[in-house]
Amino acid sequence: MPTLDINCDMGESFGPWVMGQDLELLAHITSANIACGFHAGDPDVMLKTVRGAIAHGVAIGAHPGLPDLQGFGRRVMAMRPDEVYALVVYQVGALQAFARSQGGSLHHVKTHGALYNMTAKDPALAEAVAQAVHDIDPALPIYVANAAIAAASEKLGLPTVYEVYADRSYQDDATLTPRSQPHAMIEDVDQAIAQVKRMVKDGVVRALSGKEVPIRADTLCIHGDQPGAAVFARTIRAALEADGITIRST
Amino acid sequence: MPTLDINCDMGESFGPWVMGQDLELLAHITSANIACGFHAGDPDVMLKTVRGAIAHGVAIGAHPGLPDLQGFGRRVMAMRPDEVYALVVYQVGALQAFARSQGGSLHHVKTHGALYNMTAKDPALAEAVAQAVHDIDPALPIYVANAAIAAASEKLGLPTVYEVYADRSYQDDATLTPRSQPHAMIEDVDQAIAQVKRMVKDGVVRALSGKEVPIRADTLCIHGDQPGAAVFARTIRAALEADGITIRST
Amino acid sequence: MPTLDINCDMGESFGPWVMGQDLELLAHITSANIACGFHAGDPDVMLKTVRGAIAHGVAIGAHPGLPDLQGFGRRVMAMRPDEVYALVVYQVGALQAFARSQGGSLHHVKTHGALYNMTAKDPALAEAVAQAVHDIDPALPIYVANAAIAAASEKLGLPTVYEVYADRSYQDDATLTPRSQPHAMIEDVDQAIAQVKRMVKDGVVRALSGKEVPIRADTLCIHGDQPGAAVFARTIRAALEADGITIRST
Amino acid sequence: MPTLDINCDMGESFGPWVMGQDLELLAHITSANIACGFHAGDPDVMLKTVRGAIAHGVAIGAHPGLPDLQGFGRRVMAMRPDEVYALVVYQVGALQAFARSQGGSLHHVKTHGALYNMTAKDPALAEAVAQAVHDIDPALPIYVANAAIAAASEKLGLPTVYEVYADRSYQDDATLTPRSQPHAMIEDVDQAIAQVKRMVKDGVVRALSGKEVPIRADTLCIHGDQPGAAVFARTIRAALEADGITIRST
Repeated sequence: MPTLDINCDMGESFGPWVMGQDLELLAHITSANIACGFHAGDPDVMLKTVRGAIAHGVAIGAHPGLPDLQGFGRRVMAMRPDEVYALVVYQVGALQAFARSQGGSLHHVKTHGALYNMTAKDPALAEAVAQAVHDIDPALPIYVANAAIAAASEKLGLPTVYEVYADRSYQDDATLTPRSQPHAMIEDVDQAIAQVKRMVKDGVVRALSGKEVPIRADTLCIHGDQPGAAVFARTIRAALEADGITIRST
Repeated sequence: MPTLDINCDMGESFGPWVMGQDLELLAHITSANIACGFHAGDPDVMLKTVRGAIAHGVAIGAHPGLPDLQGFGRRVMAMRPDEVYALVVYQVGALQAFARSQGGSLHHVKTHGALYNMTAKDPALAEAVAQAVHDIDPALPIYVANAAIAAASEKLGLPTVYEVYADRSYQDDATLTPRSQPHAMIEDVDQAIAQVKRMVKDGVVRALSGKEVPIRADTLCIHGDQPGAAVFARTIRAALEADGITIRST
Repeated sequence: MPTLDINCDMGESFGPWVMGQDLELLAHITSANIACGFHAGDPDVMLKTVRGAIAHGVAIGAHPGLPDLQGFGRRVMAMRPDEVYALVVYQVGALQAFARSQGGSLHHVKTHGALYNMTAKDPALAEAVAQAVHDIDPALPIYVANAAIAAASEKLGLPTVYEVYADRSYQDDATLTPRSQPHAMIEDVDQAIAQVKRMVKDGVVRALSGKEVPIRADTLCIHGDQPGAAVFARTIRAALEADGITIRST
Repeated sequence: MPTLDINCDMGESFGPWVMGQDLELLAHITSANIACGFHAGDPDVMLKTVRGAIAHGVAIGAHPGLPDLQGFGRRVMAMRPDEVYALVVYQVGALQAFARSQGGSLHHVKTHGALYNMTAKDPALAEAVAQAVHDIDPALPIYVANAAIAAASEKLGLPTVYEVYADRSYQDDATLTPRSQPHAMIEDVDQAIAQVKRMVKDGVVRALSGKEVPIRADTLCIHGDQPGAAVFARTIRAALEADGITIRST
């Protein structure tokens, strides 16, 4: 029976500032990537978000980012691998303590923003992230796309989880069409749903060129920061379940 | 056979700024209280300090503080108990991850600066710290003086460790003489050593008034930020060992 | 002809996080208290907010706060007067540079949150703020309530501006009824408007006890963080203007 | 009569952490580049440093950097020009307020670390810095090397000040030999002094290739973070003065 995890970034509020629709989304997803205080989140927000995830039976993930609160971790910074290793251990450890202290457990790690992009391209940084996760717990999966971080994760024997998108089109090499190019986004909901169904059931995606490309779909990433995020999550989940796909965390 | 732990604050550098004589001190102490990034320390410093402690066989403690880097966590902040709970979980979790990732384990928790003082006086904040430590690991000791935090720690059944000072004089109620009062500091090394010996072997301290007061001495706190810290640590350790006291972590 | 300034806190967004309804409010107020990066605001937000104020002909004020972003500057911190002096010079200077660089000028200073409360009660901290403002520009007014900061401001000869509230009731000594007490808030808009009219035209406020108390009303503080803030600002401004009160910055 | 300014970075302490030998160096230099709180420095340190500069008659410069305290502003960050504009206005404004509040005035601006390097290479970022300085005060000089920032500064008509080094060798295009290459550093003090003399008196530098290259030397940059910095500053100043070069700020 085909299965799929649905993950979404969460806990991106900070102090008095609220971001996202965490409570609405928790009802529809199976994995939460929770900000760890460097690009967003603070200890109070992390505690509240972990409690919410546990209450909804949603798997708890650490979502470490660059130390750039103002830039929301989206500005590339020139970091050495040892610096990346240390900031991943720090943030994942903090989130893990919230999970355990509330009776839950840490389920996975997914990097955020510029760190996600940096570790997709730079093997040394990817290896630093994978090593950090491995040294915390070699059974802890990293959520990855088909990139440097996937290779680094596989190399260390981590239980790598491959991530796909419903609302993004793909290239012939199974990478996302850059947002700067036409047709990068899939606006039509039915088309988005159809793309995910094929990925999950057939292991292929029809690239922009029309070519059918093999792809591995373990988890679907939902963007939580858009107005209709919760409605979209509910809609796509219902459509996938109606088609016989089991939605559950990995 | 009488035993005593010797603890010292460590890992208080930050970014390019160096503080303390960590490497010299690690040879003479048995427990390190390692800053966790809020009042001092950063992920790189934490990693290096944890590695140093493991290399020297020194027990690794988390040393959480207030979120006030510029003030070094020494300025009292009006925090709610739930805020204190969350910042302790966060910082202890981060340090614990460094310990585990390097093949070590977290041995204890000791609060820093204004947080130490706040939890000595305010039962609600003390309970927040004790609950946070308990929820991370109920076998994790807190290093305490005879104050609100000690009561909160005992109440939750945590393996409470009592801390004493060599270079501070005591009052009739077994609390430290405030630094604002005369004779708060014990400048004479022989007198400091003698005070510790009596605490450990007889369970009493001679208060400033001359009265002998019962006191429990599980661990001796060495101040690492003074010029002769490493020499003092070596001297007092040698003197205590020569007198038949075993120096080891709890 | 009676006149009144209407001031409101502004520029309290930070990085990706939006707070307040700055654009809507700018049409109805005459003075903006702009956050300076310590409790809220960042250089990008400050620049944008200053430009907005200039475009609307709204006077630009610096709104310095405690260095506590997560706590939004609302947690009291134990600060020395020299620390308060320095953080006021820093923040006011930064905001002043934005004003000048965009062709405007700095009009006033108003402290934020816990710093506002601390300088209302503690004469040494109040004097530190007044001295900082004086040393930057002795013609720069501080917005104050009738408290320690007012005395410190008057003492240095600063052009002190007295602030009143429409939606708060008053005590017999012309101070605000604490929010913890009943009837602290004035929910009825007509009553709020009537209170301000009497303050401006007659220089008195009817205290909760029924007693009429002298009060000086130079500027009215509008809370911008409530849902109906912009509507309330427009309503009260129209009502005051209809009654012959000129609304303009001091 | 040939003249030369001698500048040095200052005020790079933060909170409890001390960096540099500011007091020793102030006796030998004529311009201080004072950190503004983003990569180093805090309001207390800035106040103290500005007072020290005024007491020694040293010209006060703002030394803005990237918002990366842990990385000391040395890690390149992907910043947009408008972000760079805003962070320069913010930091220069803060430092200017300290100068004015203490009876001094702001003399110049010099960017720090990665921001210095980014504005040397990227014309859009260089123009952002120059525009920010211009908008604060069009008479305020930027200290520059012969790079993008120099062009941007000249273009806006700012009184550009050209900076040279005593302890670095030069290439045929009058740029510094990268530290990664051999002979980048000039270890011999006499050779360093001779290089500066020629730059000031003849307007040329002998490049590593042996070729004589025209160069403009308005100010000499001394590195304050090395053990013998104060001695080196005194030595080179005395040697230049003995050779008839007047040492004074621009």
